[in-house]
Amino acid sequence: MDKLKVLFHVNDPERWQRTLLNIKNFVLDVGQEHAEIEVVANGAAVSVYADTGSCEKSTGCGKAGGDLLEQMNKMAETGIRFAACRNALRMHSIVEKTLPPFVRVVPAGITEIVKKQADGYAYIKP
Amino acid sequence: MDKLKVLFHVNDPERWQRTLLNIKNFVLDVGQEHAEIEVVANGAAVSVYADTGSCEKSTGCGKAGGDLLEQMNKMAETGIRFAACRNALRMHSIVEKTLPPFVRVVPAGITEIVKKQADGYAYIKP
Amino acid sequence: MDKLKVLFHVNDPERWQRTLLNIKNFVLDVGQEHAEIEVVANGAAVSVYADTGSCEKSTGCGKAGGDLLEQMNKMAETGIRFAACRNALRMHSIVEKTLPPFVRVVPAGITEIVKKQADGYAYIKP
Repeated sequence: MDKLKVLFHVNDPERWQRTLLNIKNFVLDVGQEHAEIEVVANGAAVSVYADTGSCEKSTGCGKAGGDLLEQMNKMAETGIRFAACRNALRMHSIVEKTLPPFVRVVPAGITEIVKKQADGYAYIKP
Repeated sequence: MDKLKVLFHVNDPERWQRTLLNIKNFVLDVGQEHAEIEVVANGAAVSVYADTGSCEKSTGCGKAGGDLLEQMNKMAETGIRFAACRNALRMHSIVEKTLPPFVRVVPAGITEIVKKQADGYAYIKP
Repeated sequence: MDKLKVLFHVNDPERWQRTLLNIKNFVLDVGQEHAEIEVVANGAAVSVYADTGSCEKSTGCGKAGGDLLEQMNKMAETGIRFAACRNALRMHSIVEKTLPPFVRVVPAGITEIVKKQADGYAYIKP
């Protein structure tokens, strides 16, 4: 079986949870070795990538974000790729080097999404 | 003319109405014989598939759901396919055998969506 | 480099702003000569196309709409195409001839989206 290639597009922060759940269920269904998955975040959704930093300084904040990042981190270790749009990072005043190492910054999220679809990836907007 | 193949993805219950309207307008435009349509519901959107059952027990509930189901049922008779994600059904405690006969349960909604796109279906998120 | 072909689908009026921002960033990234862009509006999103008319009659209304239309107009001059679904226009009682000249009316927005994807356009729902 060829690998099933999927691009998930997230632009609302509140859609991260269902996106990660979608990915988990997909991988459980087809098997990790048959899935090629990339997640591209733009818009306000990139803010969740930056929740780590703010949560190291206080205990009350970003629990949801921290938990999401932890899930993403584990997924990244299995080969799932996470990208962030540089324009969105700038709009939300997020410094690139504060992002977790598994996040790849792309010049423009839309370009990444378009190129991946041209490369045979299915598009899903959770 | 080749058939125009389309996959509609619904994950919010409140998007069902516009999804069905989109389908109606599309079929009116291209003709039923030129359209190959599948709707895949995951997330909370699967709850609408189950509105029949709850409404047989009371009179005050699920009117909207019942009306949507009726529309779906008529569409299904013309060859439009409706699928439900099994993971989503479980999360919403919906028993599969209570679903209307026209609903096909798939192991994972995302897998179905990815495969259909690989098979040439356009993707639309209403 | 082949042109990167993209279809943006807008059905909620409040998503226009981010759609236009996505387009700007995309064009800045890949260069206008490498981008082939079409925007298809259906549902309530078509109302923004009609904000001009109402704003010519009063000063207090449609500022956001007017500003969006101005941005669209400039984009249209660079070759970006804007389409409106005729069914949606009717539902929102918008008279076609009141639309700005750069808006092309299509019989059904969904058909346009499906055909563009069949023609190799990536699909993006901002």
